[in-house]
Amino acid sequence: METIKYVLDETRMPTAWYNIQADLPTPLPTTLHPGTGQPIGPQDLAPLFPMALIMQEVSQERMIDIPEEVQTIYRQWRPTPLFRARRLEQALDTPAKIYYKYEGVSPAGSHKPNTAIPQAYYNKQEGVKRLATETGAGQWGSSLAMACALFAIQCDVYMVRVSYDQKPYRRALIETYGARVVASPSEETHAGRAILAESPDSRGSLGIAISEAVEIAAQDVDTRYALGSVLNHVLLHQTIIGQETMTQLEMAGDYPDIIVGCTGGGSNFAGIAFPFIGAKLRGEQDVRVLAVEPAACPSLTRGKYAYDFGDTAHLTPLVKMHTLGNTFVPPGFHSGGLRYHGMAPLVSHLLELEQIEAASIQQLDAFGAGVEFARCEGILPAPEANHAVAGAINEALRCKEEGVSRTILFNLCGHGHFDMQAYTDYFAGTLQNYEYPAEEIAMALAGLPSVE
Amino acid sequence: METIKYVLDETRMPTAWYNIQADLPTPLPTTLHPGTGQPIGPQDLAPLFPMALIMQEVSQERMIDIPEEVQTIYRQWRPTPLFRARRLEQALDTPAKIYYKYEGVSPAGSHKPNTAIPQAYYNKQEGVKRLATETGAGQWGSSLAMACALFAIQCDVYMVRVSYDQKPYRRALIETYGARVVASPSEETHAGRAILAESPDSRGSLGIAISEAVEIAAQDVDTRYALGSVLNHVLLHQTIIGQETMTQLEMAGDYPDIIVGCTGGGSNFAGIAFPFIGAKLRGEQDVRVLAVEPAACPSLTRGKYAYDFGDTAHLTPLVKMHTLGNTFVPPGFHSGGLRYHGMAPLVSHLLELEQIEAASIQQLDAFGAGVEFARCEGILPAPEANHAVAGAINEALRCKEEGVSRTILFNLCGHGHFDMQAYTDYFAGTLQNYEYPAEEIAMALAGLPSVE
Repeated sequence: METIKYVLDETRMPTAWYNIQADLPTPLPTTLHPGTGQPIGPQDLAPLFPMALIMQEVSQERMIDIPEEVQTIYRQWRPTPLFRARRLEQALDTPAKIYYKYEGVSPAGSHKPNTAIPQAYYNKQEGVKRLATETGAGQWGSSLAMACALFAIQCDVYMVRVSYDQKPYRRALIETYGARVVASPSEETHAGRAILAESPDSRGSLGIAISEAVEIAAQDVDTRYALGSVLNHVLLHQTIIGQETMTQLEMAGDYPDIIVGCTGGGSNFAGIAFPFIGAKLRGEQDVRVLAVEPAACPSLTRGKYAYDFGDTAHLTPLVKMHTLGNTFVPPGFHSGGLRYHGMAPLVSHLLELEQIEAASIQQLDAFGAGVEFARCEGILPAPEANHAVAGAINEALRCKEEGVSRTILFNLCGHGHFDMQAYTDYFAGTLQNYEYPAEEIAMALAGLPSVE
Repeated sequence: METIKYVLDETRMPTAWYNIQADLPTPLPTTLHPGTGQPIGPQDLAPLFPMALIMQEVSQERMIDIPEEVQTIYRQWRPTPLFRARRLEQALDTPAKIYYKYEGVSPAGSHKPNTAIPQAYYNKQEGVKRLATETGAGQWGSSLAMACALFAIQCDVYMVRVSYDQKPYRRALIETYGARVVASPSEETHAGRAILAESPDSRGSLGIAISEAVEIAAQDVDTRYALGSVLNHVLLHQTIIGQETMTQLEMAGDYPDIIVGCTGGGSNFAGIAFPFIGAKLRGEQDVRVLAVEPAACPSLTRGKYAYDFGDTAHLTPLVKMHTLGNTFVPPGFHSGGLRYHGMAPLVSHLLELEQIEAASIQQLDAFGAGVEFARCEGILPAPEANHAVAGAINEALRCKEEGVSRTILFNLCGHGHFDMQAYTDYFAGTLQNYEYPAEEIAMALAGLPSVE
């Protein structure tokens, strides 16, 4: 019998997250106050986040315990399966071994609950009554809504207007979990009203929706803000993906030569890669790590490593990251989860340290890879995950050309059952590639704050 | 630590299906030829099905081996998890223990691949080049399309016109797997053309789509027909659900007092219940078994136990079953998988033998239960599965009233990620209940063939 699945008994589910900050050769650049440009401390973030999450944001401890109650909920779908893509290998006729970790088995269909659950938990612990957040495509919004339902916290989701109108099904899922969905920009906030005054027909953006959610959280003592990617503590919570994978690959008697993940804000990529990068940083085992981003939102490959705001209204702290500029609005391509102007500071830092590589992929290539994958493996990937699939297939084909076998691991961060319009458009031939003119990117970057 | 999930190691996945025909106190009524009304033999079915499936249809063997190649594909998502719904129990404040088996982890999101995979396998074994089938909501069509992709068989799916127009996303999934989707009634068949000549705007029905697929299969030597429910061999393939559950409940040290499943054609219900009913028939262990159907398509509770055709054009054999009449077209309620005029002969037979009970549930109650379930358990059920959820909740509330603890098991046969329009309509208040006037049912039943 050929093994295609590596299942980890739930008693072997990791009980602590891995914090890569403990292994960095040089620390992350300091986070700065949005108003003063001066370094900020934990207390400055208290209006937005519960103290437990703030301490995780800055912690230098290597392992951080997962609370028992969070573990219990994780165990509903974790450990997630690791698959050997034998049928895809055969179709590609490659000597490479391809493994993929599948996060689509979570109730929300993606990796996002890995951080939504602990975020809701810590907020509940500190007496928070309501969480405000933003969502683009809706993967994050639905995951946080689910987590808030489990912990009986009210949840307000500011949903980018264009998604609110075009993706009513994600909105319906969020509402089924009992959360309130508000089209952003909205009349509920100063930030939203300011945008609407200028452009009554604004289609919104993640940057605007973040401004609204942050504003709501900052002004209400019982409300905090929750973010689905980018921040250190969010990436931390996702590392359970890579830790499980390490154990599963041990079961398979294997270790990756190459790890591939797709990047938008960086959280699923960090989840699969950081535990392996940690082993590399500690000199235990080498590995190539490849971040694949959409050509239509190329923060890692064409952005600038600079201090920038996370939002449009400049309410968030300034962090050093690869950014296309906080005014950057990507075109309407079909990977809503990857449409963000910035990249997680930790991922950006690792690229600067040359611990990871980055590449961009065109939309049509990503969907082509996703369809090939679905026909071989049965699982239909989310458009975001298609970027990782494409990256892995490219590496496997290189192995074939070079006549060498390598072990390729990628993260299949979610299923595409909510994204069928994208596949419909792909088959209808209405999807197109997008190449940014250099001057457009330069223009967006010109608006960066002048902080060093 | 409270256990909420019972995971079966894949080495303990059943390697044979359970055939309840071996344990029936009286055999199933004979199947009759559609033209002559005389009993038919295996050879009469050969134009439609491969011989291996025909032999399974009539087999009296208790256990039928699952081919190694089918097992390997099953293992991608099987054994599926059994959950203890502790958070739901708490919300209901019931002394009952509620377990649910979750089939939504399959790549297609439902239990349908359990039979799609072996059907594609046996057809491939016998050299079949193309499978023709029908689909309503699309769960079956997408599952067969996936199976055909894995075995490199061409797949033509006749999709009920109203679903084809209103559920483009299921259609997109089927096409992503490489199958051809045809709106039914179509111009491709005599059956379709006859309907269109009479009603050019026909919205179609499962009965019509079956006629088209059967006609295509019957006239092409390289093409066979595949059905997603109703038939004995289809129910057989689903019994892996109940067999796994038996072992998982053993791990939990428990045995169900009540088993609840939703019924359309009867396959997911049979899958969870038959292994337990078998134990009851053999006098090993008693259990109550409850089939829950939609009030808008009440074949078990308001249909007649009589010989009827499976399709509108009377191309299929005559089987004895609970039926609303082959001309019956249910209203457009939101459980496409339960919109069929007949019930599986095996399920019907067991109802006649008083081995199972049947109840119907209104659409709004089903959705109410599904939303409550989602907010407690995180998983969003398919509208079909909501009927089982509602049945289980009703039983749990009865336990509370009576102050007794019982062990309730139900089958959560699929997730609702493709069914968000239904939830949207539910929250918008546009869904309604449906109670059939007795005379309407009597009228549909008046058209039954006069065969005893």
